[in-house]
Amino acid sequence: MPQFDTIAGRLDEQAIELPSWAFGNSGTRFRVFGQPGVPRDPFEKVSDAAQVHRHTGLSPSVALHIPWDKVDDYGKLRAHAESEGVSLGTINSNTFQDDDYKLGSLAHRDARVRRKAIDHHLECIDIMDETGSRDLKIWLADGTNYPGQDDMRGRQDRMHEALQEIYGRIGEHQRLVLEYKIFEPAFYHMDVPDWGTSYAQCASLGERAVVCLDTGHHAPSTNIEFIVMQLLRLGRLGSFDFNSRFYADDDLIVGAADPFQLFRILVEVIRGGGYGNDGDTAFMLDQCHNIEDKIPGQIRSVLNVQEMTARALLVDRDALDKAQAAGDVLAANGILMDAFYTDVRPALAEWRAAKGLPADPMAAFASSGYKDRIVAERTGGAQAGWGA
Amino acid sequence: MPQFDTIAGRLDEQAIELPSWAFGNSGTRFRVFGQPGVPRDPFEKVSDAAQVHRHTGLSPSVALHIPWDKVDDYGKLRAHAESEGVSLGTINSNTFQDDDYKLGSLAHRDARVRRKAIDHHLECIDIMDETGSRDLKIWLADGTNYPGQDDMRGRQDRMHEALQEIYGRIGEHQRLVLEYKIFEPAFYHMDVPDWGTSYAQCASLGERAVVCLDTGHHAPSTNIEFIVMQLLRLGRLGSFDFNSRFYADDDLIVGAADPFQLFRILVEVIRGGGYGNDGDTAFMLDQCHNIEDKIPGQIRSVLNVQEMTARALLVDRDALDKAQAAGDVLAANGILMDAFYTDVRPALAEWRAAKGLPADPMAAFASSGYKDRIVAERTGGAQAGWGA
Amino acid sequence: MPQFDTIAGRLDEQAIELPSWAFGNSGTRFRVFGQPGVPRDPFEKVSDAAQVHRHTGLSPSVALHIPWDKVDDYGKLRAHAESEGVSLGTINSNTFQDDDYKLGSLAHRDARVRRKAIDHHLECIDIMDETGSRDLKIWLADGTNYPGQDDMRGRQDRMHEALQEIYGRIGEHQRLVLEYKIFEPAFYHMDVPDWGTSYAQCASLGERAVVCLDTGHHAPSTNIEFIVMQLLRLGRLGSFDFNSRFYADDDLIVGAADPFQLFRILVEVIRGGGYGNDGDTAFMLDQCHNIEDKIPGQIRSVLNVQEMTARALLVDRDALDKAQAAGDVLAANGILMDAFYTDVRPALAEWRAAKGLPADPMAAFASSGYKDRIVAERTGGAQAGWGA
Amino acid sequence: MPQFDTIAGRLDEQAIELPSWAFGNSGTRFRVFGQPGVPRDPFEKVSDAAQVHRHTGLSPSVALHIPWDKVDDYGKLRAHAESEGVSLGTINSNTFQDDDYKLGSLAHRDARVRRKAIDHHLECIDIMDETGSRDLKIWLADGTNYPGQDDMRGRQDRMHEALQEIYGRIGEHQRLVLEYKIFEPAFYHMDVPDWGTSYAQCASLGERAVVCLDTGHHAPSTNIEFIVMQLLRLGRLGSFDFNSRFYADDDLIVGAADPFQLFRILVEVIRGGGYGNDGDTAFMLDQCHNIEDKIPGQIRSVLNVQEMTARALLVDRDALDKAQAAGDVLAANGILMDAFYTDVRPALAEWRAAKGLPADPMAAFASSGYKDRIVAERTGGAQAGWGA
Repeated sequence: MPQFDTIAGRLDEQAIELPSWAFGNSGTRFRVFGQPGVPRDPFEKVSDAAQVHRHTGLSPSVALHIPWDKVDDYGKLRAHAESEGVSLGTINSNTFQDDDYKLGSLAHRDARVRRKAIDHHLECIDIMDETGSRDLKIWLADGTNYPGQDDMRGRQDRMHEALQEIYGRIGEHQRLVLEYKIFEPAFYHMDVPDWGTSYAQCASLGERAVVCLDTGHHAPSTNIEFIVMQLLRLGRLGSFDFNSRFYADDDLIVGAADPFQLFRILVEVIRGGGYGNDGDTAFMLDQCHNIEDKIPGQIRSVLNVQEMTARALLVDRDALDKAQAAGDVLAANGILMDAFYTDVRPALAEWRAAKGLPADPMAAFASSGYKDRIVAERTGGAQAGWGA
Repeated sequence: MPQFDTIAGRLDEQAIELPSWAFGNSGTRFRVFGQPGVPRDPFEKVSDAAQVHRHTGLSPSVALHIPWDKVDDYGKLRAHAESEGVSLGTINSNTFQDDDYKLGSLAHRDARVRRKAIDHHLECIDIMDETGSRDLKIWLADGTNYPGQDDMRGRQDRMHEALQEIYGRIGEHQRLVLEYKIFEPAFYHMDVPDWGTSYAQCASLGERAVVCLDTGHHAPSTNIEFIVMQLLRLGRLGSFDFNSRFYADDDLIVGAADPFQLFRILVEVIRGGGYGNDGDTAFMLDQCHNIEDKIPGQIRSVLNVQEMTARALLVDRDALDKAQAAGDVLAANGILMDAFYTDVRPALAEWRAAKGLPADPMAAFASSGYKDRIVAERTGGAQAGWGA
Repeated sequence: MPQFDTIAGRLDEQAIELPSWAFGNSGTRFRVFGQPGVPRDPFEKVSDAAQVHRHTGLSPSVALHIPWDKVDDYGKLRAHAESEGVSLGTINSNTFQDDDYKLGSLAHRDARVRRKAIDHHLECIDIMDETGSRDLKIWLADGTNYPGQDDMRGRQDRMHEALQEIYGRIGEHQRLVLEYKIFEPAFYHMDVPDWGTSYAQCASLGERAVVCLDTGHHAPSTNIEFIVMQLLRLGRLGSFDFNSRFYADDDLIVGAADPFQLFRILVEVIRGGGYGNDGDTAFMLDQCHNIEDKIPGQIRSVLNVQEMTARALLVDRDALDKAQAAGDVLAANGILMDAFYTDVRPALAEWRAAKGLPADPMAAFASSGYKDRIVAERTGGAQAGWGA
Repeated sequence: MPQFDTIAGRLDEQAIELPSWAFGNSGTRFRVFGQPGVPRDPFEKVSDAAQVHRHTGLSPSVALHIPWDKVDDYGKLRAHAESEGVSLGTINSNTFQDDDYKLGSLAHRDARVRRKAIDHHLECIDIMDETGSRDLKIWLADGTNYPGQDDMRGRQDRMHEALQEIYGRIGEHQRLVLEYKIFEPAFYHMDVPDWGTSYAQCASLGERAVVCLDTGHHAPSTNIEFIVMQLLRLGRLGSFDFNSRFYADDDLIVGAADPFQLFRILVEVIRGGGYGNDGDTAFMLDQCHNIEDKIPGQIRSVLNVQEMTARALLVDRDALDKAQAAGDVLAANGILMDAFYTDVRPALAEWRAAKGLPADPMAAFASSGYKDRIVAERTGGAQAGWGA
């Protein structure tokens, strides 16, 4: 197995974008439990996100959700981010919280609703121009709850038309990133339920249309790393929304439910040229810290991704290739497992220390006093949430 | 196959309890869409529920959820129900919406929180005494999101102690009904995740502790009618929460996702002596009409249950038994399918007409003017919902 | 709803190909139970298949599996089929039962094994030329059991190269049909696990490469009719392998596990122009009658497909479109359900009688004496099976 | 976290029984690939199993499957095992490979078939007396493929009666161990599909009837460690059949698919008093090495169990309890993960060396020459398999 030193350099290439909404309140349909100190506006969210980067060096940018993160002056928000040591990243559209969108947005039967949803995306592109964002991420809640409720084929065609108009407005250095999800909030069918649909839609839009893979958006038993491999092979893996799940779209801390799966995904990302300077696949988190502390939850998450990336980089590719070529099933599997079972945490602590980062980011944040400060300061106003 | 006439009498035994909350707003964590005319208090919910019974003759009682349906004077609510032609039914407790319950209720580590949760249940029993309800239904949202978050064994033991105290207060003619659910709102483990756990807990409480089977609360591929058979065999199938699902706990209209499964369930209920005058298994709905009209949604639901009950009653038991005994796989399956494929709708329309009910309850409600009236009258005040 | 008469003509367009292997023995890894009278060679299989067509008028062709159905003289087999009133249909290749294929076939690391597997397919095309078959169906058992066992990307690329060579040999009026399957016999990954992979492979091969959708080859909770819609929209739905399942790839009688799903699939096929004279989507069965009688099992299956096709044709498209356009969720769903709940069996019995077919094909076959005859005649020799 | 030294002693308590059939050929319904050197009789299987114990010190006993491992003289087989340094363990019955069992065994409608199946179990108990086995493990393939095929309730009752007779013959120091499985080989319903059924059956049999939990026998998303906790709490966790799965009952090497799940299971076993000298829960493997080498496959498996046991023993219970009591979700989860991410392999190599065992059992076996020897010697005769 390679020594840690030989892969340490590649860890510098890692950047994991944080979702602004992870710092606001979230929950289930049964209850959203509030937490003291939760941000009340996008500026405070960005400040919290910056704490994660400050302690880990892993998360230099923050994704925004429109309209949750609408501000009067994006230049001011951008400057605020920069002053906190981070930048503004992906712009996420939202067409699932207006009464008009009850039965869909880009796939809706009513041209007026589709127009409204398209315009919302064009507005998002305007915001991207102000924030300097590269990616417009589109996750559509569109779908139906009952068989027969609408014509799936017509919806697909209308959605395609709408995406074409949006894609037409994307700048030369920008990308349209189309996310898929098997279910929720629609229960019978989603208009973009699987990677195949997202891929087919993107392929017919153009080169700057790429797929977002959210690790929690698949049927049980789906081999996610296979999809990673395939999308990289097809040149369409635009980004990841990392999180983890035991059942549905649980949005738990990435790596918490199945760390070995996260490892296999990262092995495939590296293998396929999607990692770091090799490629254009963006790493993002998309999580909900319903019951745990939010900032430490995000710190834990980026550390999990980093630890698994280190393990994935440690795979002895030459030995693996030889064992695979020899058809030695147990040896090949053993070589992969060797890397997974290696405890990279001490080496990563040194890596951090060498960069002037805290060896133990969780402990460092806990003793930083930041949490007490925001709890004390953030009184009055309404805590940010999903606005549901 | 038996003639419809020979089973028509058994249809008179059917009663399907409606959930008061089906008439309030509901949705997903992404959005709760409101509807005009939604009730603003338990009295209006009961009035809406009574419409369902008025048009179908199938739903003579309404289940309440405490505290959603708390009123100052339950006698008055009871009288209101009676004046509307229905009665008050099961009392559902709620220990998932108070900040204290963030990490659990009856299974919580903290004795103070458990005390509070137990007291809530004792209060529910007091209400039962006022409303004349037989069943206390307990669905616990207790569980954890992350491995290690709490000790599952300790939680099970604490929950058992708490249930014992509650069971001790249940009256001689009352029942404690314990519901199970595989996941949501907790994502790593639920403290009552499966029928086995609910059964084991009930068996150690006493004879008046029985299981509630919610058709949407199982892992994919679970054979629900087998559980129906087993719980009836063990004498512990207290009640059903009917609804349907494609993925998780979608809470769609019962029979909408897999009508054949509903048929098989009802075949097993009848076979096991759980239907009508034969037994003590209560039929209830537990659904969310997120995007469809609520009162018609409930009418459709009870009709679905009735239609499948009729089909299940039509199974030619003697012929089936003979084919089964002969090991004739195709013939036995064919006899079951014969009943399922029989279109009972015309005969049921006659059954209704003979009772002075509308032949087409959906159309009758639509033309009744009730919807317009409530939309016009129910202005001001806050629409009822889950209070999340 | 349309009258049956108005759709009866479209039923004449239906043809469902039977798999020769459904008449041989099959089972699970635990046991293959034999049945008396099972065919011992392809000629006897074709004779059995012809019985299904004789009694239903629905299955004019028989698919062959090579090498299970290898014969010295395909002209003779073709003539035998014609004399029995059926024709030879799809040729299925088999690259999973030779020791060389233990770790794969078209995706194997070893060029020698790939060569052998490609050559097998070229031989199949030769056979197609003799049998007059249009379709070469390729289902690859290729995959791995353990993470790391082989490089998934390399396998995908090698498989693509091999498919290109095979596709190059397909005649102008022939098609390469690529089937996908989520798992089994490989347990960690399959090289063609989902419709997206099959579609991407076919799209890069050429226009005569199309996808085969086996209804039992998906993850739990997959919305199969959505895939039907999408593949028809993309012009790549080559064929169906019909069967049904409760858990994995159970290969039960089509419509036995979830008749409503079969209905929804057929609604989408018709909607998308894949049915009958409208399109090129072939209907085939791929089933195992492990414990039930095989010929009646196939008769039951084609009748199930026909009954659901009739129901799907009965959907009132105009009314449905209006309800959908109006956003009337319950009405739209209700219109669909109306067709599903209609008992088309009496009308189909008349349809058959009018064509000189038995009104009740199951009973007619049972009383035909065919079963007794083959049980008596087929003594000696080895019963056909999967050759595993 | 505790030092390895403080838990090393507990590792001595570990014993993992090997299945004789893991050394014979196995496969899927599509193909059983043979391997050179595979045993031809129970004696050779025991010899192979002994190799695993010789190199790991972890597997002192071998389970037998009747009739696969039937011999004329069990005393001789017992002596052979002892001479190889192992003993004979659990006796597994088999009522799924005789033509009579096509539609069931203990649950069959026909009293003659049930009698035969009961007698088979009584014969197994006779063998137990000769082999000195404690456990009779009963896995029933009983079930149905089609709704209506048989009456599930009648089957349950008949099965119970049959189990009572068998239980009546179990000796005072013997146990009846009842395994459950969600599906396969039956596809619609299994007569013992879940832990609840197995538990209910055992509870009504008596104290020496306990449940066997096979880790591959659950629906997707089932929380297995919860069941471990519950069965230990109820005093009925008799044994484990360890293996791993991605989809169905894949029977892969334990820990290969989800090592973190194996860890969580072992944490719960230790927590609940089921480990080693604390309890009576037997550890067994039940795996198929379809494509990998069988003896090394078993060595890898027992090492996986040992490694995860060591990690599970390393959990800092006091710290965990404190974090749990404090409701510190992230800290509690972190304490668990600390143990999981610890690389115990070097310490275990030392543990082995100190006992005179090879530090690297996989390498030691590879260089032992045993494989070459059996390949050379075991010519002629029929390789052992499942006898399907």
